[in-house]
Amino acid sequence: MPRYTAPVKDMQFILHDMLDVSSDKTPGYGELDRDFTSAVLDEAGKLASEVLSPLNVVGDTEGCHLENGVVRTPTGFKAAFDQVREGGWTALDLPEEFGGQNMPYILATAVGEMFSGANQAFTMYQGLTHGAASAILAHGTDDQKQTYLPNMASCEWTGTMNLTEPHCGTDLGLMRTKAEPQDDGSYAITGQKIFISSGEHDMADNIIHLVLAKIPGGPEGIKGVSLFIVPKFLVNDDGSLGERNGVSCGKIEEKMGIHGNSTCVMNYDGAKGWLLGEEHKGMRAMFTMMNEARIGVGMQGVAQAEVAYQNALDYAKDRLQGRAVTGAENPDGPADPLIVHPDIRRSLMDQKSFAEGARAFLLWGSQLIDRAHRGGDEDAHGMISLLTPVIKGFLTDEGYDMTVQAQQIYGGHGYIEEWGMSQFTRDARIAMIYEGANGVQALDLVGRKLAQDGGKHVMAFFDMVKTFCKENDGEPMADFVEPLKSASKDLQAAGMFFMQNGMKNPNAALAGSTDFMHLFGHVCLGLMWAHMAKAAQAALARGDGDADFLEAKLATARYYMTRRLPATKMHLARIESGADPVMTLAAEQF
Amino acid sequence: MPRYTAPVKDMQFILHDMLDVSSDKTPGYGELDRDFTSAVLDEAGKLASEVLSPLNVVGDTEGCHLENGVVRTPTGFKAAFDQVREGGWTALDLPEEFGGQNMPYILATAVGEMFSGANQAFTMYQGLTHGAASAILAHGTDDQKQTYLPNMASCEWTGTMNLTEPHCGTDLGLMRTKAEPQDDGSYAITGQKIFISSGEHDMADNIIHLVLAKIPGGPEGIKGVSLFIVPKFLVNDDGSLGERNGVSCGKIEEKMGIHGNSTCVMNYDGAKGWLLGEEHKGMRAMFTMMNEARIGVGMQGVAQAEVAYQNALDYAKDRLQGRAVTGAENPDGPADPLIVHPDIRRSLMDQKSFAEGARAFLLWGSQLIDRAHRGGDEDAHGMISLLTPVIKGFLTDEGYDMTVQAQQIYGGHGYIEEWGMSQFTRDARIAMIYEGANGVQALDLVGRKLAQDGGKHVMAFFDMVKTFCKENDGEPMADFVEPLKSASKDLQAAGMFFMQNGMKNPNAALAGSTDFMHLFGHVCLGLMWAHMAKAAQAALARGDGDADFLEAKLATARYYMTRRLPATKMHLARIESGADPVMTLAAEQF
Repeated sequence: MPRYTAPVKDMQFILHDMLDVSSDKTPGYGELDRDFTSAVLDEAGKLASEVLSPLNVVGDTEGCHLENGVVRTPTGFKAAFDQVREGGWTALDLPEEFGGQNMPYILATAVGEMFSGANQAFTMYQGLTHGAASAILAHGTDDQKQTYLPNMASCEWTGTMNLTEPHCGTDLGLMRTKAEPQDDGSYAITGQKIFISSGEHDMADNIIHLVLAKIPGGPEGIKGVSLFIVPKFLVNDDGSLGERNGVSCGKIEEKMGIHGNSTCVMNYDGAKGWLLGEEHKGMRAMFTMMNEARIGVGMQGVAQAEVAYQNALDYAKDRLQGRAVTGAENPDGPADPLIVHPDIRRSLMDQKSFAEGARAFLLWGSQLIDRAHRGGDEDAHGMISLLTPVIKGFLTDEGYDMTVQAQQIYGGHGYIEEWGMSQFTRDARIAMIYEGANGVQALDLVGRKLAQDGGKHVMAFFDMVKTFCKENDGEPMADFVEPLKSASKDLQAAGMFFMQNGMKNPNAALAGSTDFMHLFGHVCLGLMWAHMAKAAQAALARGDGDADFLEAKLATARYYMTRRLPATKMHLARIESGADPVMTLAAEQF
Repeated sequence: MPRYTAPVKDMQFILHDMLDVSSDKTPGYGELDRDFTSAVLDEAGKLASEVLSPLNVVGDTEGCHLENGVVRTPTGFKAAFDQVREGGWTALDLPEEFGGQNMPYILATAVGEMFSGANQAFTMYQGLTHGAASAILAHGTDDQKQTYLPNMASCEWTGTMNLTEPHCGTDLGLMRTKAEPQDDGSYAITGQKIFISSGEHDMADNIIHLVLAKIPGGPEGIKGVSLFIVPKFLVNDDGSLGERNGVSCGKIEEKMGIHGNSTCVMNYDGAKGWLLGEEHKGMRAMFTMMNEARIGVGMQGVAQAEVAYQNALDYAKDRLQGRAVTGAENPDGPADPLIVHPDIRRSLMDQKSFAEGARAFLLWGSQLIDRAHRGGDEDAHGMISLLTPVIKGFLTDEGYDMTVQAQQIYGGHGYIEEWGMSQFTRDARIAMIYEGANGVQALDLVGRKLAQDGGKHVMAFFDMVKTFCKENDGEPMADFVEPLKSASKDLQAAGMFFMQNGMKNPNAALAGSTDFMHLFGHVCLGLMWAHMAKAAQAALARGDGDADFLEAKLATARYYMTRRLPATKMHLARIESGADPVMTLAAEQF
């Protein structure tokens, strides 16, 4: 049975040594001192490792079952969900007036990583509810907020996002689901939605579906899409549950992983829905959920990489196989542990340097979100808007690769289901796909975000890196600053190539979009590692904290700089080859 | 339901335009003219797409089941196996005296790729039999050959390889299975073996297990390991089947993929076995199987990449989603097909350039094997010995990545099982693990093969590349030769780094072993693409063949050179960072 141990120490290091959150002037950050965050994270970590993690394999093995219209979740899920609800973990960052705890988003991200690492399929029920609640909070009427938010904050009711239809995923303009206005101000929703995570289940009294649909007679394509609130059970004026709405689960998909989450085909047969936000402005409202969801999916990439790494590390220390080439390290045993072998270490260091660097990226990104939302900081808003596709796309591509590497350390034992390593890989795979497949993230980054506000945010990013490098020039930071400088130069050169060639031929930029996203991601993780190295050096100089841990941070930072950052040159070379190699063949010639 | 179409045209191009097999002086090659290979490949392709491919999903869904000691294979497997047997496809390259067809190995490889692409789990029953038969052919007594080979050549009896035990995989010196000499010259085999592919099933009359075990009192560790033939049913002197031997399947593993193949725990309880080859020379005999098996596994990587690509390509042409950024290409439809989007093409070109380049590598490698085995060419033997870990490790790592890319093109439809794309990924995953995990391949390459015979073979490889580049200097081959030269220089620089640093500190070489294997693989595929480009140019100049196909070859070669080969510089930079970044942390600091 795999284990999950919450990386509290690493999170504390990032929050306090690197980001110094309690000195941040953002509202709510003053309370985030070491003791407070430690108490929250310890408690959440305990729940993650003791309650959610043991159910991970159960969820995978049993899956969800549709019987007579009712979806049965795996054994133990409901009881665990009750524990999560009772502990008040469902609405850390929602406003107090709706039953939330009004904590910064950064703390919700840290806790979310733990829960997702322990049990991704389970945590999705809560995660989607949070996304739906955020959309209602941002776009709902007072009445809608009062009606839905308190029960969604507590997860007594859960939420869903309904975008995809059989013939359209990315291209939502092709949508066919209809919303016909009724005399009572509601709409009758008719159509089929697919791939609806947590679409139907037995863990909550009600399910609040947010559904994209077209009001007949509205504009063509994506501009005619509106967002609706469609509850499974209608809510009476006194807040009690009324009749069952015309929405039902037609099928649960068989899928590669996240078996514990019910992925449903949802049929809407004239279901009663209420407009959320404005008519034909559904995409805008949906994007409130989507942007949050994209950060959340990036988090899943990190979380699965972390838990897979933890187990691979245990195995590498325990499993005796072969001898160190430089002489036996366990001479009294029959063989040395796997961890003595350089290629096993190379893999473990890849994983460790990714998980910790990505965690820092995620928490820094969450700090930007707090600055934007709580502090009204427009620059922070622009920066996180730029970085969102990188967080989603890069962290899930890499996170998946890391689960594959972790699985590989187990040899044949990684391929059989008994050890749980296959599940981490299978579960992590979805994160590259949902909430906008990673190719779409790359397109968003290169086609939209780079040029947003006249390219202001990407310039701000480069300035930030440049300033950091200048301020930390020379010893003792040279080992970190020099590679970062070089990688950042590659990123700028790629941006320059797009500017010079993309105007004439957009394909010259788009052919390099995935490479650019990865190049950008490496620069971000390089920046994070440089920051962490600086924080570790400072703590060591002060004689503060666990010297072994801090020395490991420096060594891992060096690893990232020397072994991972060289990828930027490869991505740049690919980008600079432009559109021709990619676009030359006619479709028939493939 | 996914489709499989045998890539006969591409195979014909490689065999005849690139490798010019019928001019090769190797015995048996003279018969390989275009018509002959075309007839064989067409016939095999038909069987693959019409019979084996439709059973692929069935095998995945049903799996194998152990009931009262009997393993039931998926519906339709036995009937299909009968068709394969009846068609004479089980022993293309085995000697005629044992019922084989005595064809060159290169043809068996081409057919093997088809069968594996259509249904990997199914084809393993046959593949393992072939490996076991090869070991008996190479090391068996005349009597053993007569007893076992005819029925194994026809797959009336199938074969297995029994190496792994619960506590040892790579490090077989830790083995505990015992072989106690009996008065009749046989041995009593006792112990447990795990992960035994095709270990027990209902498709053959007998199963011939090749089992590694230790004869008590022999040398310690790996030097005391011997190989034994342990039939499921003892064979009477007249060739009829006698009593059931003391070997049984204790369990079938639940695993990530290849569900159609029974992966068994095999229990040997004093089972009767006969020594194959010499006492304590079991590893040598086993390596006859292993080397062949490693090429076969590399082939699986290519095969899964090919079939996944074929289906991804279909989907990219069919699925309408979004508009080309340069203007609608399907203006009368609701949207353009996916294939218009640059990032989708980037992915398809990655897949296409890998599958075709890797196929050429595999067939060239098979030609080297034929030259070694049939022609007694020692240099060819040395070269394929050097390249075997590259074929196994690089082609399965990359092959897996390509199935992941193919799956990605389907978006959410790639994650659900309905479309079959998840299965290609799950099936391809095993190839990175079995027959020596890819880290072990990298170790074999860097720790053993590079220095073999005084480094003679790697020098021969460099000479070969150099000669090719010199002979094809300037136009019209410059687009292909220049990138190949540069990549080859990176490979030489990496080898030089190992020579200069590996003597003092072997970890300096081993820390870069996986990167070196990938760097080597890219140079090999670059070489293959340069050869194919040359062959395509020649055919175009002659006005021979399908111009569209040949132009596509040139465009795909250019893609490989500009978009894939830049990886060599990244691998070199990683290698040159040496041992320190990898080895610095103490195990406790992870």
